[in-house]
Amino acid sequence: MLRRLAFNVKLWLFYVVMTKRKKTNNKFEPKSSKKHTDSSQKYGSHSKNYIARSQENVSSMLFGKHAVLAALRNPKRHILHLLLTHKNYIEMRIELEKAIKEGKHNNLKISHVNKKELETNLPDGSVHQGIALKTKLIEKTSLEDIINKTRGSPKELIVVIDQATDPHNIGSILRSALAFGAAAVVIQDRNAPGITGTLAKAASGALERIPLIFSKNLARVLDKLKVAEYWCIGLDVLASQTLSNTNLDGRIALVLGAEGTGLRRLTREKCDLLVKIPINDNVESLNLSIATAIALYELTRN
Amino acid sequence: MLRRLAFNVKLWLFYVVMTKRKKTNNKFEPKSSKKHTDSSQKYGSHSKNYIARSQENVSSMLFGKHAVLAALRNPKRHILHLLLTHKNYIEMRIELEKAIKEGKHNNLKISHVNKKELETNLPDGSVHQGIALKTKLIEKTSLEDIINKTRGSPKELIVVIDQATDPHNIGSILRSALAFGAAAVVIQDRNAPGITGTLAKAASGALERIPLIFSKNLARVLDKLKVAEYWCIGLDVLASQTLSNTNLDGRIALVLGAEGTGLRRLTREKCDLLVKIPINDNVESLNLSIATAIALYELTRN
Repeated sequence: MLRRLAFNVKLWLFYVVMTKRKKTNNKFEPKSSKKHTDSSQKYGSHSKNYIARSQENVSSMLFGKHAVLAALRNPKRHILHLLLTHKNYIEMRIELEKAIKEGKHNNLKISHVNKKELETNLPDGSVHQGIALKTKLIEKTSLEDIINKTRGSPKELIVVIDQATDPHNIGSILRSALAFGAAAVVIQDRNAPGITGTLAKAASGALERIPLIFSKNLARVLDKLKVAEYWCIGLDVLASQTLSNTNLDGRIALVLGAEGTGLRRLTREKCDLLVKIPINDNVESLNLSIATAIALYELTRN
Repeated sequence: MLRRLAFNVKLWLFYVVMTKRKKTNNKFEPKSSKKHTDSSQKYGSHSKNYIARSQENVSSMLFGKHAVLAALRNPKRHILHLLLTHKNYIEMRIELEKAIKEGKHNNLKISHVNKKELETNLPDGSVHQGIALKTKLIEKTSLEDIINKTRGSPKELIVVIDQATDPHNIGSILRSALAFGAAAVVIQDRNAPGITGTLAKAASGALERIPLIFSKNLARVLDKLKVAEYWCIGLDVLASQTLSNTNLDGRIALVLGAEGTGLRRLTREKCDLLVKIPINDNVESLNLSIATAIALYELTRN
């Protein structure tokens, strides 16, 4: 009886050991990668819950040549670790050295990794181009900072996005906003994507150069902008006026809603004027980042 | 002694069973999924080599609500299998029935699957929204078809893209081209992405409604378009004229190059006119799909 019990205990212990062993083997974990994944977090479009926007000290992984070079050039970035393939190390050496010098990241930790090692640190499907950067989030800018900075200037543009969920779209909007000289991009905090590698990649370096402000209450943002003498222009497919016929000029807050649902009622009501971009009748809508870029182009055209 | 041997044999057998169990558990493989992955191919942005554009009979997986509904509505689509979650089956039932009726896909095979089962059939990171469709590629349209169809029409637009590699960009360009009434999108075959689920998702249904033409020789495409009385307008950051100052009208082929390198020399030389979209000096370029959409907007503005 006792012998049988001992046997069962042994069997159970063996089961536990085997299960544990299998678990650790489940994922490819290179020796060197332990250091990279301190917090065993993965960052990206499909893991936005891991990104705490409110925690300044949370680190994130950027990837892609443009995004990484722009982050390195930024002296305000707290860079933790550069990971790149040997091929990139050879090909990008001069560019990287220049960027590191510009950003004053002299004691930067650099690791040569292979493609597989790099991918263990990135969300599945990341178009990393053989280079990634572990970095802390950049310091947040407040709406008040932007209002103070743009006070008295006769021509200004601020982009306000109500309910965007796709990091590609937000990244793309940052890139266009920078290209057309906007002062900042403000987005509704709820359901917004985190500042992930996917967002930074789509922004193609713009994340370092234009403030992205998360706001809990977009109606209050519009109130504050109106007090600061911004003209709030909402884009709405059902508007009667087209954007190009309005000849808008001056200090403008351009307000856009989600693709399917458009501006929410309260946001729409806060706008001084609603305009549309005319498109074919049999097409429902434009992509959000496309609509934003066209509006920015139209507003800065002359 | 014999008892000890028997124990060791039992232990070994248990080890074998556990290892096997773990192996089969490593990847969730539902009973029904074998049918879905007949060719064990995965489709998407990171598997473009699997997509043979020249093989009309190759099947592909579309995903996302808009892309799937648009494909179902298209009677020209040869649909093989609709896969969706029970939640979507309940929520989208009326919409789906309507689309299936419109596309005349009466004997469509439909499977209810869970999220994991769906994902085994899609490329990693696909934003599938709980719905996917196995379908054969749609019939190809030739440049000659488009030229014949648009002959004599005083106002036409064709988008020509030199060297695009990102399926998101091509999908997004199709969507904007449809929204602004272009007749077709022509892209350089070499290095172009396949007609993948990622491309179709970014096109948000436009893939079914505007021809996407792959061409081996873009210079010859421009020659043919000129003969057909299209005015070839190239977008180039170094052009001296801005797009908005040209007042272009009539039959236009809008030609764009890759983001980093722009138009290739031969393509540039074939253009009747080069124009630019003015952006901030300290910004290198716009995203390709953004630049295309802005140009389409500007050309159809009045």
